[in-house]
Amino acid sequence: MEKEYTCEVYAKWKEKKMGVISFEDSKKKKISYSVPPEYMGHCHEITPEDLFLASLQTCLSSFFFNMASRARLKFISFDSCARGILKKVGDDIIFSDIILNVYISVKNEKEAHKAKRAMEIAERGCYISHSIKAKVIINTNIKLIKKEEN
Amino acid sequence: MEKEYTCEVYAKWKEKKMGVISFEDSKKKKISYSVPPEYMGHCHEITPEDLFLASLQTCLSSFFFNMASRARLKFISFDSCARGILKKVGDDIIFSDIILNVYISVKNEKEAHKAKRAMEIAERGCYISHSIKAKVIINTNIKLIKKEEN
Repeated sequence: MEKEYTCEVYAKWKEKKMGVISFEDSKKKKISYSVPPEYMGHCHEITPEDLFLASLQTCLSSFFFNMASRARLKFISFDSCARGILKKVGDDIIFSDIILNVYISVKNEKEAHKAKRAMEIAERGCYISHSIKAKVIINTNIKLIKKEEN
Repeated sequence: MEKEYTCEVYAKWKEKKMGVISFEDSKKKKISYSVPPEYMGHCHEITPEDLFLASLQTCLSSFFFNMASRARLKFISFDSCARGILKKVGDDIIFSDIILNVYISVKNEKEAHKAKRAMEIAERGCYISHSIKAKVIINTNIKLIKKEEN
């Protein structure tokens, strides 16, 4: 990345305790959100913590998809689960720790080695991880799935 | 908030350089994402930086919606725009600065005072702002819109 890059995101109140997020590129899907039900909001709506953990995971996995493509790695599946802990630290509530479990399946040892290498590069490049205060622990699990050759 | 609170979010690879984000509550809408087109990905898909800035704005505005409700503030509109700057700091790329412009319209001076107070509380309570390294500058603009009484 040269010098710096800027990005804009918009929030708009719709009604009651609900709003909608939109982006510079108006063709991107909008995201509706709400205050959670425990604060008299609405059910089944996305929260700030959902988006925070989603941001971290899309960053890490997108880096992995790129690195996999460069290394001509053919993985069978990629899944991750981010578990964030919000707690009071001093006067403020913050995301203090995030555990990110990554599960990748491949068909042989050679691909497993490539996947491990791609994840190492993705971890170092993950700019969302660098932009947050939480301690991020990434556990990578690579599974070999033997397949019959056609 | 008592003690601590945990939250989980999931990412799953779909095809090529695309994935999908899902949540503990399976009734929440999933979010598809992709590596951006400049890295041989797809157009019009949400990026990690979109989600990062969305997280900050949903947190701040949800706090405001709550505070407004408690204060029986009747605002006419609430809009915000977050502009984030990503740049290289040392060896890492990070979100270094975020400028958040908030526009609230109300119908009289009394409501304007309540809106200002609600925003002050929302700024202090915004746990996403506390969880990130970026310097966050919030500019609040409150506009009076005179309306004819019915």
